[in-house]
Amino acid sequence: METSGDPNQPSSPNVRREVEGMQEMSTLRHRNNANSENEEIDEEETYTLSVEQVFESKSVPSWKEQLTLRAFVVALFLAVLFSVIVMKLNLTTGIIPSLNVSAGLLGFFFVRVWTGLLERCGMLRQPFTRQENTVIQTAVVAAYGLAFSGGFGSYLFGMSSRVANQAPEANDAKDIKDPQLTWMIGFMFCVSFIGLFALVPLRKIMIIDYKLIYPSGTATSHLINGFHTPEGTKLAKKQVKMLGKFFAGSFFWGFFQWFYTGGDDCGFTSFPTLGLEAYSRKFFFDFSSTYVGVGMICPYIVNLSVLLGGVLSWGLMWPLIEKKRGDWYPDDISSTSLQGLQGYKVFISIAMILGDGLYNFGKVVLYMLWTVAKNIKKKRSALPVSDSDGGDIIPKPISFDDEKRTQLFLKDQIPLWFALCGYIGVAIISIIALPIIFKPLKWYYIAVAYVLAPVLAFCNAYGCGLTDWSLASTYGKLAIFCIGAWAGQGEGGVVAGLSSCGVMMSIVSTAADLMQDFKTGYMTLTSPRSMFVSQVIGTVMGCFIGPCVFWLFYKAFKDIGLSDSNYPAPYAIVYRNMAILGVEGLGSLPKNCLTLCFVFFAAAIVINLLRDLAPEKLRKYIPLPMAMAIPFYIGSYFAIDMCIGSLILFIWEMVDKAKADQFASAVASGLICGDGLWTLPQSILSLAKVNPPICMKFLSRQMNARVDEFISTL
Amino acid sequence: METSGDPNQPSSPNVRREVEGMQEMSTLRHRNNANSENEEIDEEETYTLSVEQVFESKSVPSWKEQLTLRAFVVALFLAVLFSVIVMKLNLTTGIIPSLNVSAGLLGFFFVRVWTGLLERCGMLRQPFTRQENTVIQTAVVAAYGLAFSGGFGSYLFGMSSRVANQAPEANDAKDIKDPQLTWMIGFMFCVSFIGLFALVPLRKIMIIDYKLIYPSGTATSHLINGFHTPEGTKLAKKQVKMLGKFFAGSFFWGFFQWFYTGGDDCGFTSFPTLGLEAYSRKFFFDFSSTYVGVGMICPYIVNLSVLLGGVLSWGLMWPLIEKKRGDWYPDDISSTSLQGLQGYKVFISIAMILGDGLYNFGKVVLYMLWTVAKNIKKKRSALPVSDSDGGDIIPKPISFDDEKRTQLFLKDQIPLWFALCGYIGVAIISIIALPIIFKPLKWYYIAVAYVLAPVLAFCNAYGCGLTDWSLASTYGKLAIFCIGAWAGQGEGGVVAGLSSCGVMMSIVSTAADLMQDFKTGYMTLTSPRSMFVSQVIGTVMGCFIGPCVFWLFYKAFKDIGLSDSNYPAPYAIVYRNMAILGVEGLGSLPKNCLTLCFVFFAAAIVINLLRDLAPEKLRKYIPLPMAMAIPFYIGSYFAIDMCIGSLILFIWEMVDKAKADQFASAVASGLICGDGLWTLPQSILSLAKVNPPICMKFLSRQMNARVDEFISTL
Repeated sequence: METSGDPNQPSSPNVRREVEGMQEMSTLRHRNNANSENEEIDEEETYTLSVEQVFESKSVPSWKEQLTLRAFVVALFLAVLFSVIVMKLNLTTGIIPSLNVSAGLLGFFFVRVWTGLLERCGMLRQPFTRQENTVIQTAVVAAYGLAFSGGFGSYLFGMSSRVANQAPEANDAKDIKDPQLTWMIGFMFCVSFIGLFALVPLRKIMIIDYKLIYPSGTATSHLINGFHTPEGTKLAKKQVKMLGKFFAGSFFWGFFQWFYTGGDDCGFTSFPTLGLEAYSRKFFFDFSSTYVGVGMICPYIVNLSVLLGGVLSWGLMWPLIEKKRGDWYPDDISSTSLQGLQGYKVFISIAMILGDGLYNFGKVVLYMLWTVAKNIKKKRSALPVSDSDGGDIIPKPISFDDEKRTQLFLKDQIPLWFALCGYIGVAIISIIALPIIFKPLKWYYIAVAYVLAPVLAFCNAYGCGLTDWSLASTYGKLAIFCIGAWAGQGEGGVVAGLSSCGVMMSIVSTAADLMQDFKTGYMTLTSPRSMFVSQVIGTVMGCFIGPCVFWLFYKAFKDIGLSDSNYPAPYAIVYRNMAILGVEGLGSLPKNCLTLCFVFFAAAIVINLLRDLAPEKLRKYIPLPMAMAIPFYIGSYFAIDMCIGSLILFIWEMVDKAKADQFASAVASGLICGDGLWTLPQSILSLAKVNPPICMKFLSRQMNARVDEFISTL
Repeated sequence: METSGDPNQPSSPNVRREVEGMQEMSTLRHRNNANSENEEIDEEETYTLSVEQVFESKSVPSWKEQLTLRAFVVALFLAVLFSVIVMKLNLTTGIIPSLNVSAGLLGFFFVRVWTGLLERCGMLRQPFTRQENTVIQTAVVAAYGLAFSGGFGSYLFGMSSRVANQAPEANDAKDIKDPQLTWMIGFMFCVSFIGLFALVPLRKIMIIDYKLIYPSGTATSHLINGFHTPEGTKLAKKQVKMLGKFFAGSFFWGFFQWFYTGGDDCGFTSFPTLGLEAYSRKFFFDFSSTYVGVGMICPYIVNLSVLLGGVLSWGLMWPLIEKKRGDWYPDDISSTSLQGLQGYKVFISIAMILGDGLYNFGKVVLYMLWTVAKNIKKKRSALPVSDSDGGDIIPKPISFDDEKRTQLFLKDQIPLWFALCGYIGVAIISIIALPIIFKPLKWYYIAVAYVLAPVLAFCNAYGCGLTDWSLASTYGKLAIFCIGAWAGQGEGGVVAGLSSCGVMMSIVSTAADLMQDFKTGYMTLTSPRSMFVSQVIGTVMGCFIGPCVFWLFYKAFKDIGLSDSNYPAPYAIVYRNMAILGVEGLGSLPKNCLTLCFVFFAAAIVINLLRDLAPEKLRKYIPLPMAMAIPFYIGSYFAIDMCIGSLILFIWEMVDKAKADQFASAVASGLICGDGLWTLPQSILSLAKVNPPICMKFLSRQMNARVDEFISTL
């Protein structure tokens, strides 16, 4: 029985996108999912009714009926909400947890309220079905996904003069492209659709023949199926209520905090919770309900890895390197220059992220090849559901569920010619339009990218189906280095590299997402055709919402992108420096920086190897290099937030495991969404030049005495 | 059945002392208690087993066995804890809720742990009985009661030069007596014991013949009986656990707050939660877990009355009077002078407190006389338990419980000669010693007081038995005026008045307490003799602990008694000004102040009349004048704390009434005790000159800009 009464379900995390720094998290999750998946399948056989038998009394609407206006209105609203949240996360730490559960819960809630109201008025023409719910979910995820894959916190923002000015290298006009609402929307339209066409023809092979798991897609479908069984509706309502409470609390907490931020370093975000000395080393709890929520969603090991990374860098390495000032790097250099301490921070984290990314890329490719080879060898067209670690393959009889799902999945076809025409059409438009937007990006770079893209997209979608692990940003980084080097120095190689990163990332990420959604659709009897339409509409929304939300932040908070501000956008500078590295080589790094980079690159690979080779028991205590690298650049305050989230979850699980499993993700979603939504009025206030009235200031006792004296003289 | 499984029990408030501003609260509570009392008695008959039948298998230890060493060790520890808490409350707002439930819970908990440990080691010689528990409770309450009735926040501190210097009147040497540890302990010993002897001979009449209710005493005995039935132990443990959690939370919250108070107006106690403008008018939430806890214990109407008083005075009257500056009072006067705005604040609140006190004094006396007259008329020696409003008297047969209790109550006698000798002996010592301590207090003032005292003590104990309402401070205020006027101006009438207030208050308050305890003892089969001994030992503890704790505060916090500090000790200045009023007359008040005083004196009486005459439904919406008067002087920040406590309780009751009833008082006690205990290390740190490292400062945006500029020039 896969009702959401099963405590595994609502809390089962479904990460559908590759998010900087969170790749490993997805894998971990995948393991959980894969296990629970198997368990559920086993359970299924012991119960008398399978999922589709439970739902048999309900007729499946036609694909056009699945696409309702109300669904897209709700999706639009949620897309804006989640885009704001993702944008905020992009620009603060770059750590973005899965918001799919929140999207699912809130989507269900809004349509439920809507249909409930209409029902009372006797005006309800169409009942709320799980297919409609899937359509909402798909559109929302497609739309807010673009807020991440659009690179507003990474490659796109990395082109701006504000980021460029933090380093002396490659900041002449050709290497800079400042954000503008118009070209950003145009760029989004060019790159975001092509991925949708790339793999459409292969959907039957991947979903039905290979029976790839797509853990996140499966988890989402469990969630939606759960909502629409009577028992599930009850639990879902409770979860929504819980989410609502924490949403409101978190929103008003953000609102309250705002009043005390009337100046630099004012308010709760500058609270030296662990003392002034620790604060100066960026160790403090900054009362951010967002990151407490994120900590509750992320596995413990992610949070602890981040904290470990923070202690290692800000607690140990940076103070040591600072002592070498004048020796390792010039004495008189500004604190933001990459020739100084800042350079160590940026390049060591790049090295660690690259090491982790490349290791995992290799691993997924090898694993994929091995699985394909095994399939060919066994000469069986239907690959049974297998444990993701590729272990035992248990032959299973085709169940009632599978039969029914396959039948409906194959009913509404998307013709091959449509996919081909779409791909070629969009590719031609891109090849013409993109070089107009980015001068240094020649048309042949893009053409080459589009020829290679489908293969890479297949790799990514297949790997994601097996491991839940989308490697889009790794492919993007490869593009940065390749195209950047091809374009070369002086020819705007930095912008060429960063923009080609966008092209590549969008294709491979969208392709994997689409396949995830097809899996969800398959399991909720939603037509592939309506899924495709929903994905297209969601993408259109995202192409407008993403740039607009970024524009709002960019205009409202003047210090976005500066490393000391509330919005350091850490990945913007990291991506830009990767491009510089690709174009200019390693010459300009400060003393010993390259050595340290190699050490950390190697360390990332060794730690990953250890994780994979260590016995299961030890594995969960080995930190994740990707997570460790994030605080290297921005400090560990958010790690403390996240660890507090972990701690809350840990205590909650200790006190009442069942309840924690059912409601933890609702609470976390509420915390994240409430604080995220507050960002919207906050930025509007800021644009309207309404400043907070009070400054909550933290001074040492001695300084306070002097300030008091000064105030008394006024 | 009176197990504590009955949700009425643990939450039934038991106020055993008259506390400034909280008299009315006791009455309200009394009504609840009286009702639940009747209900319980009704219920008792429907159950098969009465309380004493449940306990019949347990033998009653002899009176000497009831007095164990461990009981007094625990009592000593708790007495210190609660004395610190009461002292803090004395010196901040003067509002002191009943801590008897906390004392009961903690006392039970500590001895339970102790006996549990000994039992494991096989060394337990004596099991923990409810009699022993009653002994602990009695000693603790007697000890910490002296922290209130010793007048450290009122008459005793009112003699000090620090309070005297805030007014120009009567601050020559004769009218001042600064606190010293030695004379304070001596004074406590002189006045605290005599009350114990005053009414001992009358205990049979009041407890057995008149069957007075003593709601608090009864409630305490229910609590203790409840703890010692098997079911009760379980609930008690849960409550103790809850108390412990909030105790720890509140303690660490206090600890955390401390770090940010490195200067004047720093830290959470200066948090302008409602904005800077409201802060300057003393409207803000000061994050005090003590007063949130107090708010949870006090009835809603008390909290709302306090808030109403705050809005009326600081929100409306004071700003209006301030506008008359230069007309109603001199322009150039200091802000603490009683000839200025401060005078309005102090005298209007005195008028309101006096009006309320006198009204209620009259009411209790009339009611008492009426009940006695009725008894005589009916010529029945056993007055049945009656509703406190004096309604129907339902004759009841003597139950098994009553028989057993009466038998044990009469077993251990305290001889009449012992009581007489004690009273006369202590009186002689006092008459000799007190004039040595306080020069202006002539021996014949004291002699007169001691002749009148037993009558007043009887009045108070009888009234308290009926209404749970100890009027000790009203008798004290009468003494201030009478003796003050007798001694007269220039002869140190202020000190004479204040010290005689202490003499009178101690006797009448201790007498009522003792009778309450006898009632508790009666209902828990504790011997009157062991109760008496326990009360004596508790009083001895209190005579040392009270002055020492006050001394600690006095030395640790240098600004105690100043109206702008964290410890304004509002009643010290109120009491002193009453004495000045008694000695000097009304001449020195600023313009229109006397008129306003009469208005508020009359208003207090009218509001009280309305409360008594209004129909039951409306009555609960009519505010309490006594509660309204408190914020007149000190501002309404604590009212906001208390209302937040109310709000929490209100929501909790809405969500889960049963749980709120069972645990609300445990949570509130935890909040109060944790924060109170933190005061101990805080004052030790302060004595050791360890200052907090950080100042959390609140500045307006404009001021912050200037300060930032100043800091950057350093």
